[in-house]
Amino acid sequence: MALLFLSTPERAAVWAPILAAAGEEMVVGEHAVADPGAITHLLCWVPPQDLRRYPNLKVVISSGAGVDQMPPLPEGVALVRTLAPGIEEMVRDWVVMAALMLHREMPVYLAQAAEGRWQTRDVPLARGTRVGIMGMGRIGVLAAQTLRGLGFDVAGWSRSGRPVAGIEVHGPGGRDAFLGRSDILVCLLPLTPETRGVLGPDLFARLPRGAHLVHAGRGAQLDLGALRDALDAGQVGSAMLDVTDPEPLPPEHWAWRDARIVITPHVAASTDHREGAAHALAVLRAGREGTPLPGLVDQAKGY
Amino acid sequence: MALLFLSTPERAAVWAPILAAAGEEMVVGEHAVADPGAITHLLCWVPPQDLRRYPNLKVVISSGAGVDQMPPLPEGVALVRTLAPGIEEMVRDWVVMAALMLHREMPVYLAQAAEGRWQTRDVPLARGTRVGIMGMGRIGVLAAQTLRGLGFDVAGWSRSGRPVAGIEVHGPGGRDAFLGRSDILVCLLPLTPETRGVLGPDLFARLPRGAHLVHAGRGAQLDLGALRDALDAGQVGSAMLDVTDPEPLPPEHWAWRDARIVITPHVAASTDHREGAAHALAVLRAGREGTPLPGLVDQAKGY
Repeated sequence: MALLFLSTPERAAVWAPILAAAGEEMVVGEHAVADPGAITHLLCWVPPQDLRRYPNLKVVISSGAGVDQMPPLPEGVALVRTLAPGIEEMVRDWVVMAALMLHREMPVYLAQAAEGRWQTRDVPLARGTRVGIMGMGRIGVLAAQTLRGLGFDVAGWSRSGRPVAGIEVHGPGGRDAFLGRSDILVCLLPLTPETRGVLGPDLFARLPRGAHLVHAGRGAQLDLGALRDALDAGQVGSAMLDVTDPEPLPPEHWAWRDARIVITPHVAASTDHREGAAHALAVLRAGREGTPLPGLVDQAKGY
Repeated sequence: MALLFLSTPERAAVWAPILAAAGEEMVVGEHAVADPGAITHLLCWVPPQDLRRYPNLKVVISSGAGVDQMPPLPEGVALVRTLAPGIEEMVRDWVVMAALMLHREMPVYLAQAAEGRWQTRDVPLARGTRVGIMGMGRIGVLAAQTLRGLGFDVAGWSRSGRPVAGIEVHGPGGRDAFLGRSDILVCLLPLTPETRGVLGPDLFARLPRGAHLVHAGRGAQLDLGALRDALDAGQVGSAMLDVTDPEPLPPEHWAWRDARIVITPHVAASTDHREGAAHALAVLRAGREGTPLPGLVDQAKGY
């Protein structure tokens, strides 16, 4: 039983002593694999092309919170995404920041500041402003709770519609009602065939006029051209994007120069190396003890 | 007993029906005063020059949360600042947004975005990042509680050093220790002779290297030249300012064009007209019933 580690040297430097102290074997890089049959776990963002080289591989651990970058795995190989409290808190913080920035019209103030223009606008109260969160997984629930604490009127939407204490959660049938009450729409959905392009003309048309978009899901969920049309039509007021399609967004892309859009370069979160290692240890331990794997992904659903 | 109302027509339009419904007399504008002896209360941002015209004036209500714009009042006239939950929540929201923006290096990402540059940086955890709040009045306490909820390690400083449940509050003797643990310093102090220029070279030198400044106090508390020196020296990393000296900041001022500084035009809060009217009613009622005036200012201390 050994973990094959295929990630950055910086991460390896943090992981190696943690796994060694726990008595777990970790092999860094495919070139260092002496016995492919000993490899039971693989840590990577994208796995190597031919996984049949490792006949006893049981689990692939994605080094991030997402797994949409993963190709189909050989049958019988489990897929796990990294669970780290740090990731969840980081995304929550970015979402809260972004929601506040759009609520408080920072795109307008930033554009004014670029011209040295001091011009006040009415200040809106968070209390009563309706936020809608698409994707009510661990991060969505955390963001919902924090935004509610600021007085926002928060609802959620998820494929399951599973209830969350204190938050109104809509399921698939409630999608239009949910969108119609989202003054600020937050996308935290995983990328699946169903969510690809979901932030498009049809969705924008169902938002209240002048709604704002916070996007921390995946770039391929957003139709940037449709966003521009919705902004031009006044249907969407402003947007804050941490993900784009493609990434990196090329320097000459129009979205960089649109004052109604604020872009950050996919930095809502990054896995703290120590937390990632702790999660991997928990996966190794669960495998040995036969308990449920933390972060196990339903490969049919894709999340 | 009548309230002389000296503020904007928009505000008067909201106040008039609310005071009428409560059976209170409100006179809009000095020109409309038939009997100066009937005026007991005055609502204004800055009072008219000669208040001796109103021999029975008992209370001046500042239309904002601050009173530093008020000249000395005739003896026996009480000064009240507007208390409105909306103001407190608005400032809290702006402070939380600003703290998150500096914590998450938005000034760097905004500068990169202006050049169309997609470049990631390590993502810091809020958890463990030390925030220091100068001014632990109602707004300071609210901001402290919210930032603590995000995982920040929050301490406060106030002239009184009065304890706040769950927050480490330093008094005057603990100023240097407080500054030395403020990775993000938030100024919410009232403007008084002691706080004028307080955000200057001596204070910046006592912060941890690379600390960030969130300023929602008053413009005259900040020495902008000293801030530039501290930024140039790397002692301060970035700053977010809602107040400046002078206001409005002139278009040609260098601070507009410094990428390390984000400026909003004194919009951390504005009084919701209905909440302001409700507060004035509470002041009128308290005067009649002989109970403590809500928002009463200690005119010797200046807040």
